[in-house]
Amino acid sequence: MSSTPARKLNYDNINPHVKAAQYAVRGELAVKSEEYRARLAKGDSSLPFKQIISANIGNPQQLDQKPITFFRQVLSLLENPKLLEHEDVLLNQLDYKSDVLDRAKWLLSKVGSVGAYSASNGAPAIRQSIADFLERRDGFPANEADIYLSGGASSGVNTLLHIICADSNSGILVPIPQYPLYTASLSVLDAKCVPYYLDESKNWGTDVAAIKASYEKAVSEGVDVRAIVIINPGNPTGASLSEEDVRAVLEFAAEEHLVVLADEVYQTNVFVGKFHSFKGVLRQLQKENPDGKFDKVELASLHSVSKGMVGECGHRGGYFEVCGFDPRVQAEIYKFVSITLCAPVIGQCLVELMVNPPKEGEPSYELYQKEYNFIYDSLKERATALYEAFEQMEGVECAEPQGSMYLFPTVTIPPKAIKAAEEANRTPDEFYCLRLLDATGVCLVPGSGFLQKDGTHHFRTTFLAPGTEWVGRIIEFHKDFMDKYR
Amino acid sequence: MSSTPARKLNYDNINPHVKAAQYAVRGELAVKSEEYRARLAKGDSSLPFKQIISANIGNPQQLDQKPITFFRQVLSLLENPKLLEHEDVLLNQLDYKSDVLDRAKWLLSKVGSVGAYSASNGAPAIRQSIADFLERRDGFPANEADIYLSGGASSGVNTLLHIICADSNSGILVPIPQYPLYTASLSVLDAKCVPYYLDESKNWGTDVAAIKASYEKAVSEGVDVRAIVIINPGNPTGASLSEEDVRAVLEFAAEEHLVVLADEVYQTNVFVGKFHSFKGVLRQLQKENPDGKFDKVELASLHSVSKGMVGECGHRGGYFEVCGFDPRVQAEIYKFVSITLCAPVIGQCLVELMVNPPKEGEPSYELYQKEYNFIYDSLKERATALYEAFEQMEGVECAEPQGSMYLFPTVTIPPKAIKAAEEANRTPDEFYCLRLLDATGVCLVPGSGFLQKDGTHHFRTTFLAPGTEWVGRIIEFHKDFMDKYR
Repeated sequence: MSSTPARKLNYDNINPHVKAAQYAVRGELAVKSEEYRARLAKGDSSLPFKQIISANIGNPQQLDQKPITFFRQVLSLLENPKLLEHEDVLLNQLDYKSDVLDRAKWLLSKVGSVGAYSASNGAPAIRQSIADFLERRDGFPANEADIYLSGGASSGVNTLLHIICADSNSGILVPIPQYPLYTASLSVLDAKCVPYYLDESKNWGTDVAAIKASYEKAVSEGVDVRAIVIINPGNPTGASLSEEDVRAVLEFAAEEHLVVLADEVYQTNVFVGKFHSFKGVLRQLQKENPDGKFDKVELASLHSVSKGMVGECGHRGGYFEVCGFDPRVQAEIYKFVSITLCAPVIGQCLVELMVNPPKEGEPSYELYQKEYNFIYDSLKERATALYEAFEQMEGVECAEPQGSMYLFPTVTIPPKAIKAAEEANRTPDEFYCLRLLDATGVCLVPGSGFLQKDGTHHFRTTFLAPGTEWVGRIIEFHKDFMDKYR
Repeated sequence: MSSTPARKLNYDNINPHVKAAQYAVRGELAVKSEEYRARLAKGDSSLPFKQIISANIGNPQQLDQKPITFFRQVLSLLENPKLLEHEDVLLNQLDYKSDVLDRAKWLLSKVGSVGAYSASNGAPAIRQSIADFLERRDGFPANEADIYLSGGASSGVNTLLHIICADSNSGILVPIPQYPLYTASLSVLDAKCVPYYLDESKNWGTDVAAIKASYEKAVSEGVDVRAIVIINPGNPTGASLSEEDVRAVLEFAAEEHLVVLADEVYQTNVFVGKFHSFKGVLRQLQKENPDGKFDKVELASLHSVSKGMVGECGHRGGYFEVCGFDPRVQAEIYKFVSITLCAPVIGQCLVELMVNPPKEGEPSYELYQKEYNFIYDSLKERATALYEAFEQMEGVECAEPQGSMYLFPTVTIPPKAIKAAEEANRTPDEFYCLRLLDATGVCLVPGSGFLQKDGTHHFRTTFLAPGTEWVGRIIEFHKDFMDKYR
C-alpha cells in the first residue's frame, strides 16, 4: 500500500461535459500526424513518405499562403510606433507606402497602444469601421453598438451560446455535417444539439423541410429550441447558399421564433455565384414585409480574419454583429465578454484592415489587389484540381466546389473494409483516414468528426496545400485500398 | 395589440448563470467614467474636472507606461518579416540591435508565421523557453508538456475552472477580497465559491486558520471543495506573501487534498521582500519530505504579459503550468483549449520575450534594463506617494504597499453617509466612489466589487496614473465628504 494519497482530480471526477465534447479537427489523427512530422524532422527514413500534408485544418499560413503586405506593414508599425519617427526610411528604403503610415497613425490615435486593454466589446473606432463596412456590403445601416470584437469567431460563438442557452433543455439547431465547434461548445455548456441534415444531393444546400422536421421532433420531445446555426459558405461542406436558401431559413426562423446564428467566416471564399449575407437578406425581407413579420427576428452574424484571403488564423481576430436583440440581453453580452477583458488589440486592428482595405487610387491598392487575387485564384485552382481528382476515384463522389476552404466527398467504403474497421475498433471513415495517413502522410478529418447521415462516409480536406503531388498520393492510396478491400 | 411577435431572448429567459456573474472592474462606474471622458472630449466644460483618471483597472499602457523597446522591436519584425531583408537599414538607421534580429529569426523559424494557428497548447519552442525560465527561477526542473499558453491569464483560469468544476456542488476556495474573475467565472459555471478572508491586520496575508474554518464549514454543508485559489502578489490587496504563508497553504492543500491555483501574474511587482513561487516552494517541500506527503499535490500556476514591467494587456498573452496532474486530465485540458484553437501567436511570442529577456552582455541589455528599472521605480514611487496620501486622510487606513499594482484602503464611512447611500439604493462604498467620480473624475472600484468583510468598506485604486495632482483631488474630495456627512 502506498503512503501517498491519490490525486484530487482524475478522469472520473472532472467536468463530465468537457469530457463529452469532441473536437476531431485537432484530434487523434492530427496528433499522429504531428508525431510523424517530428520523426521526419529527426531524419527518420523508415516512413513511406517524406512530408506531412496537413489537410485537416484551415490554416493557410502554415502551408504556403503569404500574408498580405499592407496588413503586415501596418501591424509592424502598430507594434513599434517608433518606426514612424523614420518616415523617410520607411517610404524610400523599406517599401512602405504613405497610406500604410496614415492607417497606422490613425489606428494608434484610436487605440492608444496595442498593449493597452480596449473597451470589452472592442475599440469604438474599429466597431465604427466594421459598421461602415457592413453598410457598404449590405446596403443597409449598421450600428457600432451592435458589434462585438472577439478572439476569432470561435470565441464569439462561445459568447453567444453562453447567453442563449439557459439550461440543459435549451436546444440549438445545428447543421449536419457541421464544424465541431458547435457540438463541442454545446457539450461543454450541457445544452442540446438539435441536428438537421444538409442536402448532399443539392450541393449541401439547406432544406427547410428537413430543418422543420428536426425542429418539430425536438419540440415534441420537450426541447426548448432557441436558435438555428447556419454556416455559409459551408464548413465542412464547401457549399455556398443561394439567396432563396437564406430567405427560406429566415422565413422559418421568423415563423418559429428562433434566433439565427450565421457563421459567415468564409464570406469571401465564394467561387460560384455570390455571397448573400443573412443581415442583408433580413433587412430586405423587413423592407418587403411592412406587416412586421421579420421585425423581431434576432440575428447574430460572425466574421473572422482567419479565413478568406486574409488567412490570419494566428492573430485571433473576429467580430459578431447582433440585430434585433433586446438591449438588456446586449448588456449581458457586454458583461460576459468583460470577464475576460477584451479581444487581442492587434487582432482587432487586423479586423479593421480586413474590412477597410486599400481603395482604388490609394498607393497600396495595386499590390493589395494583386496579392488578394493571386490567393483567390490559387485557392480556386486547387479546389478544382482536387475536385477533378475525386471525380476519377472509384466510389468517391464530391459536390462541385462553391466556397469556403474545404471539400467533403462521400466515399463508398467496401464491406470488407467496414469489417476490418470494426475489428480495429474504428468507424469506417476513421479507418480509411488512418490508413491514408500511415501510407501517404496526408492528414484529413473523417466525416464522423463533423457528423454525417448514418451509413454514409465522408472525409474533409482543405485545398490549401500547394502542388498536386499530394493529390496523386491520395489517388494512389485509394486505388490500393479499394484493391485490397473490394 | 401589436402584430409583431416578441423577441425570443429577453432578460428573463437567457442564461441565469451569466446574469448572476458580477464584474465590477468594468461595471457601472467604469461605464460612467467613459461617458464623462466622451463629454470632455466633445468640449463639455460643465463638469467639475478636466480629465478622467482610470484608476479602476490595471492597464498601464492606457496611462503613460511606454512599452519596452526590445519587445516591440521583435514583434514588429514578426509582423513584417520582410523587414529582415533590410538588416543594414534596421541596424544602422532604425536603432534595432543584432539580438533583436536574431530573436525574431529564431521565433519565426519556430512558429512559421504569426498568422498561422499554433499547437493548441502553444508553440512547442515557446513552451520549452517557459520551462527553461521556470527552472532558472525556481531551481527545479520544468517540463514543456505541462505548460499551456493562454489568451492572458484570464483565459487560463477559465480553462482550469472548467476542468475542475464537475457540477454545481463543486466548490473552490477563493480569497476575499478577490479579483472578481474568480467569482464571475464560478457563477457562469454554476459552481460554488467558498470564500475565505485574508487578514487585513497582517497586511492582507493568508491565515490558515481562516482558510480551514471556511473549508470545514463548506464541507459540513456538503460542498465538494476541490481547489484553493491564491493570488500572490495580491489583487486587490497589494500583499506579497512570505515563504511561510506559501508553505502553510501548501501544507493545508496536501492535508485536505486540494488543487492549488496560484495566480502569480504580479510576480515581478514586488516592493517588499521577494516573490516565492508556489512551484518552487512545493518542490522544496517535496524534497524536504521524503515520506511523500507533498508528492501528489496538484498545482496550477498562472502568469501573464499584462502585468509586471511588461504591461502588455492588449496582447492577451499568458500561460499556466500544471504540476502533479493526472495525464488523462491533462489530455482533457488539451482538448478543451483546442476547441478555440490556440492563444494569439503574437501574444505567445511576447510571453517568450518576457521569460527570456536580453541577458547581460547582449546588445539590447542596457536599454532593456534601463527601461525595466525605470518602470519598476516609478511604480514603487507612485505606490508610496499614494500610500502616504491615504495615511493623512481621516478614517482611511491602508496596508503598506508590498506588491502588485493596487492599494486597497479601508474607509470608515460615517453613519450619515451610510444613510444617504441607503436612500440612493447603493452600498456605502459604491456611494463613496460614485461621489468621488462625479466630483473629481477619478474612477476607483468599490470594495464590494471584490467582496469584503461585512461592515467594512474599501476601495481599490491602481497606482499607475502619472503625477500626483489626482491624488490631491482624492484628498480634497475626502475632506469635503467627511465634512458633509461627519
